[in-house]
Amino acid sequence: MAQRPEHTTRLIADVEQELSILLRRARSAQMLLARRVHPEIDAAGYALISQIELGTASGGAGVRASDVSLALGLDKSTVSRGITQLERLGLIERIGDPDDGRARLLRLTATGADRYNAMRAQRQASFRAILDRWDTKELTDLGRLLGRLNADLSWPDSSQ
Amino acid sequence: MAQRPEHTTRLIADVEQELSILLRRARSAQMLLARRVHPEIDAAGYALISQIELGTASGGAGVRASDVSLALGLDKSTVSRGITQLERLGLIERIGDPDDGRARLLRLTATGADRYNAMRAQRQASFRAILDRWDTKELTDLGRLLGRLNADLSWPDSSQ
Repeated sequence: MAQRPEHTTRLIADVEQELSILLRRARSAQMLLARRVHPEIDAAGYALISQIELGTASGGAGVRASDVSLALGLDKSTVSRGITQLERLGLIERIGDPDDGRARLLRLTATGADRYNAMRAQRQASFRAILDRWDTKELTDLGRLLGRLNADLSWPDSSQ
Repeated sequence: MAQRPEHTTRLIADVEQELSILLRRARSAQMLLARRVHPEIDAAGYALISQIELGTASGGAGVRASDVSLALGLDKSTVSRGITQLERLGLIERIGDPDDGRARLLRLTATGADRYNAMRAQRQASFRAILDRWDTKELTDLGRLLGRLNADLSWPDSSQ
């Protein structure tokens, strides 16, 4: 930790810049991915349907709109508009909460799940085709370093 | 490329999972960052103000709403509502386009820029404090591998 200064500052700034580029690209890729799920949804609708899918993938009956809102950091009104749109497109549906008769849960419809899974399979195939050209050492290093970064980045609001 | 199969598939799946975690965390961190810019804006407002800031940081007078919409993959109506909100909060303003008298450009107000810069400085300081505990080799490797990933991920819709 002693001989740090300038050189390290530069390395940290490089990592920061590459992460900004990655996050920006991921954000703009969401537009394309959203359109693959349904031509009428945008990046916000994509974030919403992904979060609902994530919340039920672990076996739950559905997710509460308030939890979706919290996880995505979006206003309740924005989430509410998005839910109405996804429902109108037949991608998600509201069901009764088995644990609370008055509450409603959100889940993907069969159509929504089919479309979401098809988009995800396509996204994974493209991603794997790219990383398949990397050698074992690089893949191992990237996985390990991202794992460490995720462990270190304990953002206080992180829901995961 | 010959002795790939299972082991490599596993390594690629690990990288993919770590990236998913990273993107999810980044998305939920945006809620906190948004609130730091202004208590009334959400993750969508944050994405919007960041994009406007990015578009003018390179020296432009301002950005067009349609370009913001395109870059973020958000519906024009979603962007339009967000712009109205940011304007009402005094964080952004509309100015005439010097190159096209009929067009309007968006830019941060002095207050918007101050608040945005304060949030960014705080975000960078937290990020740097974390990476400052990494050794030189790890920082170099992470920067290089993310750089390669960004170069390889030439998502067709990427605006950067």
